[in-house]
Amino acid sequence: MQGLWYREVEQGRRFLVKLAPGEPLRQRLVEFARAVDLRHAVVVSAVGSVQDLRFRGIKAGASLPITPPRMHLHEVAGPLELLGLAGNLLPDERGEVTCHLHVMAARSSGEVLGGHLFDARVFATCEVVLSEIRAEGVERHLSRTGGVPAAFIPDEPAP
Amino acid sequence: MQGLWYREVEQGRRFLVKLAPGEPLRQRLVEFARAVDLRHAVVVSAVGSVQDLRFRGIKAGASLPITPPRMHLHEVAGPLELLGLAGNLLPDERGEVTCHLHVMAARSSGEVLGGHLFDARVFATCEVVLSEIRAEGVERHLSRTGGVPAAFIPDEPAP
Amino acid sequence: MQGLWYREVEQGRRFLVKLAPGEPLRQRLVEFARAVDLRHAVVVSAVGSVQDLRFRGIKAGASLPITPPRMHLHEVAGPLELLGLAGNLLPDERGEVTCHLHVMAARSSGEVLGGHLFDARVFATCEVVLSEIRAEGVERHLSRTGGVPAAFIPDEPAP
Repeated sequence: MQGLWYREVEQGRRFLVKLAPGEPLRQRLVEFARAVDLRHAVVVSAVGSVQDLRFRGIKAGASLPITPPRMHLHEVAGPLELLGLAGNLLPDERGEVTCHLHVMAARSSGEVLGGHLFDARVFATCEVVLSEIRAEGVERHLSRTGGVPAAFIPDEPAP
Repeated sequence: MQGLWYREVEQGRRFLVKLAPGEPLRQRLVEFARAVDLRHAVVVSAVGSVQDLRFRGIKAGASLPITPPRMHLHEVAGPLELLGLAGNLLPDERGEVTCHLHVMAARSSGEVLGGHLFDARVFATCEVVLSEIRAEGVERHLSRTGGVPAAFIPDEPAP
Repeated sequence: MQGLWYREVEQGRRFLVKLAPGEPLRQRLVEFARAVDLRHAVVVSAVGSVQDLRFRGIKAGASLPITPPRMHLHEVAGPLELLGLAGNLLPDERGEVTCHLHVMAARSSGEVLGGHLFDARVFATCEVVLSEIRAEGVERHLSRTGGVPAAFIPDEPAP
């Protein structure tokens, strides 16, 4: 199956993590992953509230690769309800765990904003469930085509 | 690691739940949890459509704690596509299971709305996957700092 | 418990799937499911970017059943950040695996769009985690009340 790679992954540990007001969400999750030696994981759930949300979108009409002039940066003071995080933790080529997260958050108006998360500070609380996946060999590499780091799954194009 | 608590949680039961048109989504999930004695769980997936959606956002510029004057209440008749629920079920201090859910839903225009869910009625269907987490001792308490109920994880500040 | 059906489902296999630029996201996931004989599954996580996004919303004020005149179709060239997919894979009445997905994606402005996904092409990358659920007998049938295909869970109204 052209254009598709996969890995069947066993489930590993599962963590419920809670962050306190003022903490930098993304940075803390990476620090947590290092502290418990969590190298391959996926965010199952994230709920809470955030402020000083910094994220990026891709400009309409942009072509690949994604380069800084093709992104739009956003900084929203908030606070906002945190509606979700989507993404995964994977080691990079040097073996350091990295975190790729997309964020969804709601303004007071009910309007939902989101994009590629740089970071945000926790407002009232933030509760995250992480699920470890046993995926030895899967790494995050810079995609030359895409311009962004992406999961690299060796040796298993789909059947 | 200051400002971060966690618990490694074993996975328990997993449920696929389906609600019928007209049913109150949030109330039914709590009733279901009581009926099967599900006390600690996370929403893995929710898809369907809703109407009479009631939720709240946090006012821009608000400070902690979150109090009613710092919230904005929304009621949207819809119907809307239900794009997701994020959140968890935890017992409160009296041992009663409680549900903290954030909602994402789409208007006909494609615009996505969301926030802290009070409740919504199911429109055409609603399919939810709940995953039990074995987290004895984790409870939802009112956070004096935050003003809202939040997960309380005893005894395990992150390493 | 009127209006609620459920099934306790054992967890099966778990897959990390990666799609390449230009690939049709929804079509590829269905092809993948067929290739590995995945018949009951839920999307745990989806992150990446998409273009040529086609989805539908339900018109405000619409009543059941959902019929084409009560839907609004959208086609957005993008590219957009993919913020999430919510949904499940279930066999239909003929035993063919089908996919019901709702999409959330962000414009360059940070505004989030979404609805019932027809399909989208992958832009830079797309990384999806699928979790198999052992749910023999659960199928997707056309709901006469709702007008749309919905999960059918035989024999287990909630206690």
